[in-house]
Amino acid sequence: LASRLPKVGTTIFTVMSALAAEKGAVNLGQGFPDFDCDPALVDAVTGAMRAGLNQYPPMTGIPALREAISAKVSALYGHRYDPATDITVTAGATQGILTAILCCVHPGDEVIVIEPVYDSYVPAIDMAGGVPMFVQMEVGPDGYSVPWDRVAAAVTPRTRAIMINSPHNPTGSILRSADLDALAGILRGTNILLISDEVYEHMVYDGQQHESVCRHPELAARAFVISSFGKTYHVTGWKIGYVAAPPPLMAEFRKVHQFNVFTVNTPVQHGIAQYMRDPAPYLQLAGFYQAKRDLFREGLAGSRFKLLPSDGTYFQCVDYSAISSLPEAEFATWLTSEVGVAAIPVSAFYSKPRESGIVRFCFAKKDDTLRQALGRLASL
Amino acid sequence: LASRLPKVGTTIFTVMSALAAEKGAVNLGQGFPDFDCDPALVDAVTGAMRAGLNQYPPMTGIPALREAISAKVSALYGHRYDPATDITVTAGATQGILTAILCCVHPGDEVIVIEPVYDSYVPAIDMAGGVPMFVQMEVGPDGYSVPWDRVAAAVTPRTRAIMINSPHNPTGSILRSADLDALAGILRGTNILLISDEVYEHMVYDGQQHESVCRHPELAARAFVISSFGKTYHVTGWKIGYVAAPPPLMAEFRKVHQFNVFTVNTPVQHGIAQYMRDPAPYLQLAGFYQAKRDLFREGLAGSRFKLLPSDGTYFQCVDYSAISSLPEAEFATWLTSEVGVAAIPVSAFYSKPRESGIVRFCFAKKDDTLRQALGRLASL
Ligand SMILES: CSCCC(=O)C(=O)O
Ligand SMILES: CSCCC(=O)C(=O)O
Repeated sequence: LASRLPKVGTTIFTVMSALAAEKGAVNLGQGFPDFDCDPALVDAVTGAMRAGLNQYPPMTGIPALREAISAKVSALYGHRYDPATDITVTAGATQGILTAILCCVHPGDEVIVIEPVYDSYVPAIDMAGGVPMFVQMEVGPDGYSVPWDRVAAAVTPRTRAIMINSPHNPTGSILRSADLDALAGILRGTNILLISDEVYEHMVYDGQQHESVCRHPELAARAFVISSFGKTYHVTGWKIGYVAAPPPLMAEFRKVHQFNVFTVNTPVQHGIAQYMRDPAPYLQLAGFYQAKRDLFREGLAGSRFKLLPSDGTYFQCVDYSAISSLPEAEFATWLTSEVGVAAIPVSAFYSKPRESGIVRFCFAKKDDTLRQALGRLASL
Repeated sequence: LASRLPKVGTTIFTVMSALAAEKGAVNLGQGFPDFDCDPALVDAVTGAMRAGLNQYPPMTGIPALREAISAKVSALYGHRYDPATDITVTAGATQGILTAILCCVHPGDEVIVIEPVYDSYVPAIDMAGGVPMFVQMEVGPDGYSVPWDRVAAAVTPRTRAIMINSPHNPTGSILRSADLDALAGILRGTNILLISDEVYEHMVYDGQQHESVCRHPELAARAFVISSFGKTYHVTGWKIGYVAAPPPLMAEFRKVHQFNVFTVNTPVQHGIAQYMRDPAPYLQLAGFYQAKRDLFREGLAGSRFKLLPSDGTYFQCVDYSAISSLPEAEFATWLTSEVGVAAIPVSAFYSKPRESGIVRFCFAKKDDTLRQALGRLASL
């Protein structure tokens, strides 16, 4: 059987989590919390199951959840999505990303992706028969940034879409208003679509605001915007997120969605719709994670790790070049096996070999877990 | 935006369910139960959520569930799938079908499908860039059957896969041992793969046995076998199923799966794994649904509807040509709007216009619901 995805192995997240489990390392690799969600959320889902809400929901998601999503986006970003035509509930953000790509990328179309790039994007483009065009972020003393001039230079008549991700995994960088203006300048007068992965939208720190493309009407008019309840509500295992887009894009999205997963777990949808009535959990999320970020950064402040900025996400990148000259994958493996703290090599997010001496830690962990990891890392 | 799926509208199931709701009709259209699942299953999922099992499971599914699936297949069909390498839990059967197709069908490859065909197959082939090759079932006085000589004639050097579905939606027909022998004869000496949709595997009636391709080593060696917990456990809204295949096929399946949904709801997986320890629910399912089928058939026995055989699934096809000469879609609409019973036109399962004067009813309903529908149908 000739592979459709010859370049694909097992995701780095699975590989490092397995190694962490084997070695008994503190797992700061794969991005998921080691603490539980709010019991009220579990109760809400349980209530829905006990009320017999266990059969197919509407293909696009239950109305109450689409309405809650619309209300949230409207309150936070001032953009109105019509729940009837503009929003679809997905089986997690990854499914939303693949579905967005499959519905708009035709064979031979080019899709611009910015490296380091989340590991599902390029295989998704491959599955659609598209051609990924890579632009690398720059790394300077202030961290990672997108060189928009190089994005502009990568545009060709075959460019179908640009994929962006802010807050950005793995770098923890965020796009700011000026970035979106630059992007809008590139897209103006073209038919290029935007796929905006905003799964860490509620994790932006130091009083900065999340620049959702929904804040920018010009961008929102051509964008698929993707978010994740798994990240926001500490339930990565529930596999639920959503995609929002203007009606002509969403109509195409739904054609693919209905023949991919068709729809998403009914009681989980009801539970989340009920839980969303209170905005506090997502409004407080940035403060909650900023405290963890700060705990982690302070713990490494005196070490030989050089901390890069973490303006968003629950990831902290560190430059370890004062400690080791190992390539990133080997350093991450060594750290997991010998030091007992799992990390993710940033090189895993590049299409071509690229070594920056940087690994990513996930700080979505109990404070005790972070302290335990710091106890092992700080003396390196 | 040029559509990737120009021929696709909203699925007939959504259309007819919406019409049924609007008209207050008894909904025997879309296939889902109007009764609830076993409360013990809800308790098992609730227990998993309360135990904090809410983060990412392994990409392929939790080991306990893959082991339970392997044990079930082994006990029922005498075929051993290795849980480590041969089984992946999916977000429902539809996702399993798309993922199987995406992982093996290359652009330009032909895939043989047998009409009437479930409505996700052809769009899935289209998304992969494949070419669907249609073979129509024959309809005689004994119901629907597959003309294997025509399947054989449809094979070309470009044939990548054949898709089969038994028990068959919408016709309620089943493949028997002789069918699988004929299929094996066609496949022998070729590299053609088999995609076997067996979501109704536990609903085969009148003492007949389900001829899973797992019973036929020659076929199992080249097959993706797909099943659904939604159908089996009366939880169509939970969106969980599985795909089993030999290691080389499953390795490719997983490459696509990990970048489609990545994985499936953790607490639901734990709940189902626990619930599967007792085989009674799926062993008793055929008897449970056979009683409903018989109630429904007896209720129509004296009517002008001609009952086709229903050897499996929870669907009953009827020939209404003694009642009306309307095309199927119009008859189904009339039945829903004027008579107050929703049905699905079998013509919706064909690529080209084809009228047989046959509609499909779903009898996965409370006996009272069935009696209410019969009260409206029997006098037509
Ligand atoms: C889907 S597993 C990976 C989780 C994640 O988003 C990450 O670690 O980057
Ligand atoms: C995915 S909704 C359709 C349910 C079903 O399998 C059917 O009615 O045939």
